[in-house]
Amino acid sequence: MYKLVLIRHGESTWNLENRFTGWTDVDLTPTGIAQAKKAGQLLKADGYEFDVAYTSVLQRAIHTLWYALDEMNCTWLPVNKDWRLNERHYGGLQGLNKADMAKQYGEEQVLVWRRSYDVPPPALEANDPRSERGDRRYAHLQPEQIPLTECLKDTVARVVPFWSETLAPQIKAGKRVVLAAHGNSIRALVKYLDNIADDAIVGVNIPNGIPLVYELDENLKPIRSYYLGDAQAAAKAAAAVAAQGKV
Amino acid sequence: MYKLVLIRHGESTWNLENRFTGWTDVDLTPTGIAQAKKAGQLLKADGYEFDVAYTSVLQRAIHTLWYALDEMNCTWLPVNKDWRLNERHYGGLQGLNKADMAKQYGEEQVLVWRRSYDVPPPALEANDPRSERGDRRYAHLQPEQIPLTECLKDTVARVVPFWSETLAPQIKAGKRVVLAAHGNSIRALVKYLDNIADDAIVGVNIPNGIPLVYELDENLKPIRSYYLGDAQAAAKAAAAVAAQGKV
Repeated sequence: MYKLVLIRHGESTWNLENRFTGWTDVDLTPTGIAQAKKAGQLLKADGYEFDVAYTSVLQRAIHTLWYALDEMNCTWLPVNKDWRLNERHYGGLQGLNKADMAKQYGEEQVLVWRRSYDVPPPALEANDPRSERGDRRYAHLQPEQIPLTECLKDTVARVVPFWSETLAPQIKAGKRVVLAAHGNSIRALVKYLDNIADDAIVGVNIPNGIPLVYELDENLKPIRSYYLGDAQAAAKAAAAVAAQGKV
Repeated sequence: MYKLVLIRHGESTWNLENRFTGWTDVDLTPTGIAQAKKAGQLLKADGYEFDVAYTSVLQRAIHTLWYALDEMNCTWLPVNKDWRLNERHYGGLQGLNKADMAKQYGEEQVLVWRRSYDVPPPALEANDPRSERGDRRYAHLQPEQIPLTECLKDTVARVVPFWSETLAPQIKAGKRVVLAAHGNSIRALVKYLDNIADDAIVGVNIPNGIPLVYELDENLKPIRSYYLGDAQAAAKAAAAVAAQGKV
């Protein structure tokens, strides 16, 4: 049996301000730092050890991983950063307030943008100052690989190949993997692993900074999955994520 | 022309306590953190950009790199950690106070242990609790690859292959490299790059947390090298390193 541990980053400054973040590279809040450290403490207390770590190229996930590794006394662990673990790109909504958008467009429209499987938010213009197409961290990609918006389906389309090409072979080779990423890149992976239907994934919310453990069989099919620590706290945190698009 | 930037980690808790550290995995002091951030600020102010970073598997170097990358807004940079960039192994001296040893064995003996090119300090016993042979971060090595003591010549013997096999090809491929490491792993590299004689390297001291820039020609031979920032401060810091073995 294999184990895989997923951690959504701790609270970010834009989580706190209830703004759509996407690929915008905001940092953790002090609460987010505490959540990241707590994640590491939970893993350490339960005796988890890892051989390799993966994260996105966004600092809220990277810092979450760093704090967790420090708490586990494995600062030295190899860390791989990959853009395919980035948050879903939020297009023209990046930077805007979720509740403001709910007032302006209605809660239903915001829920569609946030949680519909295949309807992306309005796209950024390629020359919008918010676009990442000039950011040198993506310079190794073709411009058209750098999204101007994404629905969850688009995020799945980059996360699943990352699973198949990179994570799955590592896990099958016996490497114990910890991954720090984002609400929607983790939802994309959860959807694939648990084979969740397109219309059911809307109900899945990932709380910040609580390790999500997958136990996988020899074919990497999930046997079970669970959050570490206080189950009630995890459920409450997930419900709070779900409520962010309300007026 | 290529540029390579070397950073010795900021002050560690055992630098502060004037203890031989070697492979012992102590962390930065608050002063060391400030030095690491300052290193990043100096690099940013001078417009340095990097494509890849290297460090050891010891947290004082890793954390120095992390703080510097954060200051340069390139938290996302690929970071490779390699044991061959570790500090020189200090054998049976690891954990002991440099001034105490000078009192007990004489300043001259301590200078030999600290700075002679080919005389290692007394070796650790393989079953000494201070030995790293049971540490899982080195589990991929053959036990005999994990030193029980090293003279600088031994450190050179692992750093130079790392240069030839890993750093030099990256630099020749046009990658801009920043490396955060240790007093003696950097001295080993400096000795090789500047072709310093075995009996002359004793006079070379690397200050904590000040970026050392090498400009290299097309054959990776040094054109010149210099510390960033206040040259007097760098010289004073290097002199302080040299004085650590005095009573």
